[in-house]
Amino acid sequence: MELDQLTDEVLRRCDVLAACSEEPHRLTRTFLRPPMRAVHEHLRTWMTAAGLQVRVDAVGNMIGRLPSRDPEARILVVGSHVDTVPDAGKYDGVLGVLLGLAAAEALARRELRRSLDVIAFSEEEGVRFGMPYLGSLAICGRLTPETLAKTDADGVTVTEAIRPFGLDPGAIPAAAYTPGQVAGYFEAHIEQGPVLESLDRPLGVVTAIVGQSRYWLRFVGRAGHAGAQPMDQRRDALAAAAEFVGAVEAVAQLTDGLRATVGSLTVSPGAANVVPGEARLTLDIRHERDTVRRLRTTELLDLATTIARRRKLGFEYETVMDEKSVPMDAGLIDRLSAATGAMPRMPSGAGHDAAVMASFCPTAMLFIRSPGGISHHPDESVRREDVRAALKVMVEFLATELDRTD
Amino acid sequence: MELDQLTDEVLRRCDVLAACSEEPHRLTRTFLRPPMRAVHEHLRTWMTAAGLQVRVDAVGNMIGRLPSRDPEARILVVGSHVDTVPDAGKYDGVLGVLLGLAAAEALARRELRRSLDVIAFSEEEGVRFGMPYLGSLAICGRLTPETLAKTDADGVTVTEAIRPFGLDPGAIPAAAYTPGQVAGYFEAHIEQGPVLESLDRPLGVVTAIVGQSRYWLRFVGRAGHAGAQPMDQRRDALAAAAEFVGAVEAVAQLTDGLRATVGSLTVSPGAANVVPGEARLTLDIRHERDTVRRLRTTELLDLATTIARRRKLGFEYETVMDEKSVPMDAGLIDRLSAATGAMPRMPSGAGHDAAVMASFCPTAMLFIRSPGGISHHPDESVRREDVRAALKVMVEFLATELDRTD
Repeated sequence: MELDQLTDEVLRRCDVLAACSEEPHRLTRTFLRPPMRAVHEHLRTWMTAAGLQVRVDAVGNMIGRLPSRDPEARILVVGSHVDTVPDAGKYDGVLGVLLGLAAAEALARRELRRSLDVIAFSEEEGVRFGMPYLGSLAICGRLTPETLAKTDADGVTVTEAIRPFGLDPGAIPAAAYTPGQVAGYFEAHIEQGPVLESLDRPLGVVTAIVGQSRYWLRFVGRAGHAGAQPMDQRRDALAAAAEFVGAVEAVAQLTDGLRATVGSLTVSPGAANVVPGEARLTLDIRHERDTVRRLRTTELLDLATTIARRRKLGFEYETVMDEKSVPMDAGLIDRLSAATGAMPRMPSGAGHDAAVMASFCPTAMLFIRSPGGISHHPDESVRREDVRAALKVMVEFLATELDRTD
Repeated sequence: MELDQLTDEVLRRCDVLAACSEEPHRLTRTFLRPPMRAVHEHLRTWMTAAGLQVRVDAVGNMIGRLPSRDPEARILVVGSHVDTVPDAGKYDGVLGVLLGLAAAEALARRELRRSLDVIAFSEEEGVRFGMPYLGSLAICGRLTPETLAKTDADGVTVTEAIRPFGLDPGAIPAAAYTPGQVAGYFEAHIEQGPVLESLDRPLGVVTAIVGQSRYWLRFVGRAGHAGAQPMDQRRDALAAAAEFVGAVEAVAQLTDGLRATVGSLTVSPGAANVVPGEARLTLDIRHERDTVRRLRTTELLDLATTIARRRKLGFEYETVMDEKSVPMDAGLIDRLSAATGAMPRMPSGAGHDAAVMASFCPTAMLFIRSPGGISHHPDESVRREDVRAALKVMVEFLATELDRTD
């Protein structure tokens, strides 16, 4: 098929999969819930038609292989995920899988020195079990008994969710690829942010998945009557939290590449006529360089302590997450850049399966412009010409990689 | 009885009434719920023993009269309320009623030129129907059909709540006192704030019930991925709200006597990894002088508009309340001050039945020190010596007022 036809097919298939949802009027598709069966049926049909050998592993990853003639050949993996957040858009994850499939379709008649596996990871968003990357962790042999024992809102464990889908949890270890067997991993994904749009570019080469810290913070003051308590005798927990929110924004704006967010803030008692006695808030802070992230995080937590002390409040925090930056493979970045031409290099502020795969094999990622930067929302979209450009790059890049012998 | 005995009796009675609750392990007593019967039984016993003539009006106000020999004599009213907020302390409202009763007890054998009515208002907190002052509004003939049609959480109207208590809603108009018949209203109440404690004084003479504005404000930005959205492309609604909260605090601290509070703030979507797209908050602003309150309110709302414009956010607000300051009667303030000796004069930042009564007759209020400024909380307390001082002042002040002929 021609590039244009394949591009149209990719977009048509995104629409088809978007209809596979747990909820009537919006797209929500979590780990191994019934709609995932329909996704697998569609993928199996398309993959088979493209000449791929299809299998589903024990955690529900669907894998289509374009085999090399050499049965000992190493494998190049291209993939992304087919689960979604609640009320999702049509392209997050799915687009990368379908671009991989379309690239495989374009490459299907070539003689390949390496095998190509197109993987549709069953879980990446972490919605059902509060723990992301179930699919790619299984591929890397990193799914622990603790993770498999995690429960969803109904008290069902990961293991218990696997069986009714017709899969065997006992085969999970066999889902892991052999280290060294995988020559590399490539993932195309929508940017989920406005950077490419603001640069007026369709594609970007990802340099790293940024490191990320996340905290719960709590300021404890003293509730009081909004009319009866003079300003100079208050210990207002929201006033302290607001001062901190301002500092977070200022520090992030002054630090190149830093993204710091207070996304959740709750006040108690939370009545219009009561001075807030307690404020709880989150701090999410990300940077490509771990030293920068840690330095700024320490500064901000120190500042929160100072704000609390000056205002005679209590302050405490809890570390929820502290994940290092995951650099993409330098060689793959260079070769991908050669395929894209003059496209910007940029870190990914969001996590991806690529962050897990990078611990296992050389990994690269391609970003596709997100109009309006909209993500995790039904208004999420892509431009046809950007999808076409991505597919063109992928066919060229994957062809080169599949021809390598190192 | 001696002053000391009466003081002990007031405090003992506060304990007795605190046991009359709708909830097992905390004090909650709202308009005409069953526990109010027990309160009435206790009050009737105590009032009758003190020589008062007891009646209950059609909205459940209990009134004990110490009559003048002159049936044409005007009436001096002393009172406060016997309903409570949820999880209340023992003294808010109740203390004022029981001090009034104790003062009547102390004055019972005197010849009175005026009659003295001790009123236990059935409703002041506004908890059950979201509308305060039901008791005092009835006394002033200001209970409207709209108010009587308001419903509680179970859909029961005020009128429907009155009948099962054995009262006749048809008699509500008759609950109103005749204008001119009432010579004055006096209310003792805990301060509910820390001002008297910080001044090391037991009592304060209230100059006015402060005017109060209340608003709902809403900043609308754009939600976005906390990792994928660069700082300079965000439209973070919480960052705007935080800037506003800081400005509210600063403006109030710079304006003598102003109390401005953001007591409620909610963020949506409210997830740690999502830039807030919307923030809703309350603004409560109070001052003894209406011109100061209105000027500062206008400034703050203008500032919110400016913050929103600079950050490219939407901003809107809704006025929930705009109540003028209610000055206490100048003559009564002077005579009450004479009775208290060198006690501070201060506005009341909270609303009271006195704010309603002041529209009807000359009104005065006495504040009693609130240890720790604690109010609307089970830890609310009073010092015995402060209660004794208040009772001493009240007996002297009321005796003088009851002897007046103007």
